[in-house]
Amino acid sequence: MYDDNNIFAKILRGEIPCNKVYEDDATFVFMDIMPRSSGHCLVIPKSPARDIYDCDEAALAAVMKTTKKIAIASKKAFDADGITVQQFNESAGGQVVFHLHVHVIPRFEGVKLRPHSGDIEAANMLVENADKLIAALS
Amino acid sequence: MYDDNNIFAKILRGEIPCNKVYEDDATFVFMDIMPRSSGHCLVIPKSPARDIYDCDEAALAAVMKTTKKIAIASKKAFDADGITVQQFNESAGGQVVFHLHVHVIPRFEGVKLRPHSGDIEAANMLVENADKLIAALS
Repeated sequence: MYDDNNIFAKILRGEIPCNKVYEDDATFVFMDIMPRSSGHCLVIPKSPARDIYDCDEAALAAVMKTTKKIAIASKKAFDADGITVQQFNESAGGQVVFHLHVHVIPRFEGVKLRPHSGDIEAANMLVENADKLIAALS
Repeated sequence: MYDDNNIFAKILRGEIPCNKVYEDDATFVFMDIMPRSSGHCLVIPKSPARDIYDCDEAALAAVMKTTKKIAIASKKAFDADGITVQQFNESAGGQVVFHLHVHVIPRFEGVKLRPHSGDIEAANMLVENADKLIAALS
């Protein structure tokens, strides 16, 4: 069951701050504070969905439309060689926060991903990377 | 640019065999022959798309609608504890075949993923896992 008090629900309600990158009617994008690569951000639906199993078709389509937009912007913003997209379901699947989210991770030749849910990024780096993504989107 | 001679384009044209799981007007699903976890399968659009950058909105929405369907079936078919969804863009992003594809990987508590593009699965296991998915879809 969807829990209204998960961290991303609180971010959507403005109860917790985040480094916002983009939003539209159906989706919201912000920086992952524990990036697996500098510039790693998250795309979430505004509507409640715990994971891919219970996310309705329209919300999922909107999330992927935004994911594509962000992937293109991320490549440009960080001069990335590639983009890794991940979406985890349940703890065994890698999920930590139980509001559906898609990871958009810029990749560079020969550079491995850092661990999932690893070190917290410096606040100024998060601001800087959000600004780069916002600029690439405009 | 999209190359019509990539392996998945050949699978779609029936020029190369595969362990088919599902298809509809817009998407096609088959077993990954180098599974990162037993039951790992791939969802692809029938229309040509190299990666997320050039995949049109409708094709991407159809791919994710099918991905959701397969994720639910995979959980049931393999009694999985979770599902990991991945989509790689460009070599640096993890992409090996240049026709957009979404990995749907059943996960089990405490079991790590095997390497990407690792060992080839035994043919009988691929048949058996495709059959389990097909049964779970019906």
